[in-house]
Amino acid sequence: MVLSVNRNSSLFHSLVSLCFLVLTTVSAIGQSSEERPPNFIIIFADDLGYGDLGVFGHPTIRTPHLDRMAQEGQKWTNFYVAASVCTPSRAALLTGRLPVRSGMASDVHRVLFPNSVNGLPSGEITLAEQLKQAGYTTACIGKWHLGHKSEYLPTQNGFDYYFGIPYSNDMDFKGTKRYRDLIADNEEVPTGLFDVPLMRNTEIIERPANQNTITKRYGEEALAFLEAHKTKPFFLYLAHNLPHIPLYASKEYVGKSARGLYGDVVSEIDAGVGKILSFLEEQDLAENTIVVFTSDNGPWLSFGTHGGSAGLLRAGKGSTWEGGMRVPTIFWNPGRIQGGVTIGLGSTLDLFTTFSNLAGVPLPKDRVLDGFDLSPALFKNATSPRKQIFYYRGTELYAVRHEAYKLHYITEGAYGMFGKKQRHDPPLLYHLGEDPSEQFDIAGQHPEFIDSIRTLVQAHQATMVLGKDQLAERE
Amino acid sequence: MVLSVNRNSSLFHSLVSLCFLVLTTVSAIGQSSEERPPNFIIIFADDLGYGDLGVFGHPTIRTPHLDRMAQEGQKWTNFYVAASVCTPSRAALLTGRLPVRSGMASDVHRVLFPNSVNGLPSGEITLAEQLKQAGYTTACIGKWHLGHKSEYLPTQNGFDYYFGIPYSNDMDFKGTKRYRDLIADNEEVPTGLFDVPLMRNTEIIERPANQNTITKRYGEEALAFLEAHKTKPFFLYLAHNLPHIPLYASKEYVGKSARGLYGDVVSEIDAGVGKILSFLEEQDLAENTIVVFTSDNGPWLSFGTHGGSAGLLRAGKGSTWEGGMRVPTIFWNPGRIQGGVTIGLGSTLDLFTTFSNLAGVPLPKDRVLDGFDLSPALFKNATSPRKQIFYYRGTELYAVRHEAYKLHYITEGAYGMFGKKQRHDPPLLYHLGEDPSEQFDIAGQHPEFIDSIRTLVQAHQATMVLGKDQLAERE
Repeated sequence: MVLSVNRNSSLFHSLVSLCFLVLTTVSAIGQSSEERPPNFIIIFADDLGYGDLGVFGHPTIRTPHLDRMAQEGQKWTNFYVAASVCTPSRAALLTGRLPVRSGMASDVHRVLFPNSVNGLPSGEITLAEQLKQAGYTTACIGKWHLGHKSEYLPTQNGFDYYFGIPYSNDMDFKGTKRYRDLIADNEEVPTGLFDVPLMRNTEIIERPANQNTITKRYGEEALAFLEAHKTKPFFLYLAHNLPHIPLYASKEYVGKSARGLYGDVVSEIDAGVGKILSFLEEQDLAENTIVVFTSDNGPWLSFGTHGGSAGLLRAGKGSTWEGGMRVPTIFWNPGRIQGGVTIGLGSTLDLFTTFSNLAGVPLPKDRVLDGFDLSPALFKNATSPRKQIFYYRGTELYAVRHEAYKLHYITEGAYGMFGKKQRHDPPLLYHLGEDPSEQFDIAGQHPEFIDSIRTLVQAHQATMVLGKDQLAERE
Repeated sequence: MVLSVNRNSSLFHSLVSLCFLVLTTVSAIGQSSEERPPNFIIIFADDLGYGDLGVFGHPTIRTPHLDRMAQEGQKWTNFYVAASVCTPSRAALLTGRLPVRSGMASDVHRVLFPNSVNGLPSGEITLAEQLKQAGYTTACIGKWHLGHKSEYLPTQNGFDYYFGIPYSNDMDFKGTKRYRDLIADNEEVPTGLFDVPLMRNTEIIERPANQNTITKRYGEEALAFLEAHKTKPFFLYLAHNLPHIPLYASKEYVGKSARGLYGDVVSEIDAGVGKILSFLEEQDLAENTIVVFTSDNGPWLSFGTHGGSAGLLRAGKGSTWEGGMRVPTIFWNPGRIQGGVTIGLGSTLDLFTTFSNLAGVPLPKDRVLDGFDLSPALFKNATSPRKQIFYYRGTELYAVRHEAYKLHYITEGAYGMFGKKQRHDPPLLYHLGEDPSEQFDIAGQHPEFIDSIRTLVQAHQATMVLGKDQLAERE
């Protein structure tokens, strides 16, 4: 049968429209499931401890959405950040480089403050800048803390969009009585005690930022970004300011958790994670989006019940004991990431390398990168390629983990807890597989490990060129 | 149409057979899914800590089967035993009564020893005896520890079958160098260092019991019992001797876990749980069988890496701090138990009451029971009916939990750890919801709770009649 159609007939127009629709659909399908590189979402909590999620063992904090994410995805139980405090940890995640290399770790000030002059050097390449090379749309929503002067903001560092508080939520303190004392005395924390700005791109749109609703608003901004950019590859970096103190949660969460206000805050973050996962599923984007949830460092233990818990790990934020630098981490990508528990080593340093490779963007060759491509572990349940963790405090190397063994050259508490700075010769040696709580020093039994790890450390230090300290200078 | 059939014809016989088959099948279906009461399986680990399962947060012990059981079932994060050591904890589970009532708690000896004279008084009613009233077939496989003289064995206490070591696996010590010292010096633990008997019913069939294969054999015995008795209601009490020290595992598990030998042992127990769940699913028994997994007390911390971990809970075995008496607990009954995490209170004391009710067996009226029926929480996600936990050490009440608040009248370490016996007046007060690690005493801020809990305690003590001490007398 031959179908004869007049070019001016409505049938002809209908056929053309149909063909166009078919071609567009085929192209979209092809792009979304095969050619199109994966989308990336990093959800970064602040000061959330290793033990603060249900699936990581907390008895009274309910995190059904993160538990679900872990059940469907991969729970990493030996995943690290590169520093035990905010600024250097964030610099490491976004550059894939130890913060001592970029100058974002300092022995003068541990993080950036509102009167700090500098930020992430412009020569550093962020993961957002990498992904821009492959045409990704990028957004940073939440805490930045890599420089709040205009030249250091997210929009200067590869992010198309920024919405958030540019540093910690406990800065710009305007009160007379400290938060620590207010909560100890069960007093209300006045609105505006912390006069932190809320920014959209490069403008301050609210000051003090209303922190009661900040977690909810970050979630809404994240969903709006996803909705607006779902048809093309995207990278969303959602860095919550909480559960860093001061603690605030939306009305519908306050008073709901058996864990108190800290639990309320984590519940609200958890619910936001659930909304993102549901959105991805509804939009048929889950199979092409890798979501990772983690935290920037361990819990701030000196704040009592307003700080989190490192579970069975020793110490917390500010320390190179495990509680300071091992963080609860979950990867999710239904259909592609093999479900289960991964006990191999991983680091936020690895996200730059892994995601660059997945996006098909070449890694920069003019600098030392500290990351590994975790793809074999994520997609094939292979052993993680990472075998070492270097634990820096400021610019000093305090400890090194090689496979199961961890050597402490120096130990030191933080913020007045867990003891003063102490050098160890011979170093302390722990087997983190058998002794995850770092209780039993076995240096005496294993001098051979000390020697072999020392060799590794020498090789590591031979490549080390310290970046100029960006945190020292203040107005 | 009328079908005329000769009584001698083969068609007649076929029809009769068919009718018989139909009737039998209908009857069997009716019994299995409606009239037949549920089967019960209690899997009891020994000295397994609150933090020792993957799903309870351990970073290097892999427990995929228990994790699965928790995902499909209910993970209870505030579930307790009635004593922090073996004998009284087991007496409480099987009788539903605080061990001070039955005389199975003592201030002279904390548990029964091979030269102990007595055991569970014959007047006590065990859960097995209860269930026998409803026609259950019952088996105790594993550690008994409620009296090893013939009159105290499981077969005298409602169990149709017994296979196991009748007390702790570290008893009948025949060596010169202690286990503690052997492992500290990395020396092999000789076979037969602990000359414990293995019994079948009332006969000793092996001595010393080969502990390398004991976990595996308990699992095989359990499956054989289930296979043999699957067509009628059954109760299986599978009480592993491990991971109580000395640690032993089958060849295929030794050296496999990143957590060392302790992890190997837990992996083998986990695999056994998986086999039981799979068997129930394959036999279509899962919907009519309630499986509960828990532990008899907290981890024996003084054994270093040969002891477990209480996770973020304070202290361990032998203590009335949370680490001694809160245990990792999972209920599983696909299709009937609502999945999720339950943070309400529960106790092994409640199993007697709950399972008696589910089996339709009246509770004994001539004695005080300390259990609650957890059915509403298990099957309807309702709030747990239990609001209090009484923490006894020996016959002395050390602490009381009422909802989130825990009052310590006395604290004491165990086995040389965690401090000497100390009385507190005013008592210490902790909010276990906000402060699960018992770090922040809030007695000064809440004198009203101390008073109201004191009233509860007085009411509790008014009903208390101490049973005659069954643990004191030794040969």
